[in-house]
Amino acid sequence: MNQANPKAVVLVSGGLDSATVLAMAQAQGFDCFALSLNYNQRSTSELDAARLVAATAVQHQVLDIDLSKFGGSALTDTTIAVPEDEPGGIPITYVPARNTVFLSLALAWAEVLGALDVFIGVNAVDYSGYPDCRPEFINAYTEMANLATKAGVEGQKLTVHTPLIDLTKAEIIKQGSALGVDYSQTVSCYQADDQGRACGKCDSCRIRRQGFLDAGVADPTRYV
Amino acid sequence: MNQANPKAVVLVSGGLDSATVLAMAQAQGFDCFALSLNYNQRSTSELDAARLVAATAVQHQVLDIDLSKFGGSALTDTTIAVPEDEPGGIPITYVPARNTVFLSLALAWAEVLGALDVFIGVNAVDYSGYPDCRPEFINAYTEMANLATKAGVEGQKLTVHTPLIDLTKAEIIKQGSALGVDYSQTVSCYQADDQGRACGKCDSCRIRRQGFLDAGVADPTRYV
Repeated sequence: MNQANPKAVVLVSGGLDSATVLAMAQAQGFDCFALSLNYNQRSTSELDAARLVAATAVQHQVLDIDLSKFGGSALTDTTIAVPEDEPGGIPITYVPARNTVFLSLALAWAEVLGALDVFIGVNAVDYSGYPDCRPEFINAYTEMANLATKAGVEGQKLTVHTPLIDLTKAEIIKQGSALGVDYSQTVSCYQADDQGRACGKCDSCRIRRQGFLDAGVADPTRYV
Repeated sequence: MNQANPKAVVLVSGGLDSATVLAMAQAQGFDCFALSLNYNQRSTSELDAARLVAATAVQHQVLDIDLSKFGGSALTDTTIAVPEDEPGGIPITYVPARNTVFLSLALAWAEVLGALDVFIGVNAVDYSGYPDCRPEFINAYTEMANLATKAGVEGQKLTVHTPLIDLTKAEIIKQGSALGVDYSQTVSCYQADDQGRACGKCDSCRIRRQGFLDAGVADPTRYV
């Protein structure tokens, strides 16, 4: 590890997207500090995947935060079923303010580390209707973050990197494969079993499977 | 409880300021949902105070989030001493990105509740140099929040209320006293003992004590 490298905090969920983002940040020369959130998501195999994916980071922290106390999403509220076919609009799998919460925790850690760079794998193409995956949200977040922190007050500039924001799932997979990402480690399914096997039916599974097909890359996903 | 009242999420720390904010929100006719964060702050008597203060709310949630994992502040890192006299600039008692994190969690709960109002007791007068207590931060936060959420996307407008932002500590105490706030329940000290008794020496204690003096209100604080 070269001490002269700039530090970055990278949000790593254990999914395909954030695994790609971590590889991209490392390829750009950042010393990466991976942050995963245990927010009582239905699929805990996502966190097992995050631990595998983040093994190449300088440090990996898993922070517990029980968003299921608030309820309101099929991903944290076990009384709401994960639908196999989403109607239009904002889907029920949307976790309220999730990216806002995650970026805020990344910002807190970045501030302690003296890092001015935060990476998040949001995507506006396949974003499934989540409001907090749009570029205008990220821009507003960055502006706010630069007013919130010591670094911002002292005239330094924090950047929220969203290298996937304009990529299709197939493009993400192609770029990640070129960087050597091992997608067999990753779990995207909203309801993966405890061995990390995907349902193959939910929104996230369908988008992922199609992505491998479109990219012409063999799909290493283990399905139930 | 009148079901027609609008709902608000109120951040309640157990301190003097947020107790006043809760009373103000209730006086404005909101059904208040109080949110406290257990972020491994040094003084756990703050949370005991929050439970007393929030007893008048419709619901009170205490969310655990271990910010001490990140370190970097005298309020969460036990290896950093709380200073008795702060030098200029941003103090060591600043918790990195705290208000950003707290507001984000309030936003998440507000979204689930269908609340469009969040209250926070930030104060720009006695703000002790914290960047995330400034009006420009709150404005940028509100703008971001309205892009982050379902409500915002659907054209509703979230408001972050900061009724204390331009008040001196004495004015806060006068207004809270008029609303019947019982300040003996509150704990402001950065290092209160486990009976909630204040040190009388830290920055927060000195500002509070002076506030009661300036307001001409008897100080009910229990000191060690």
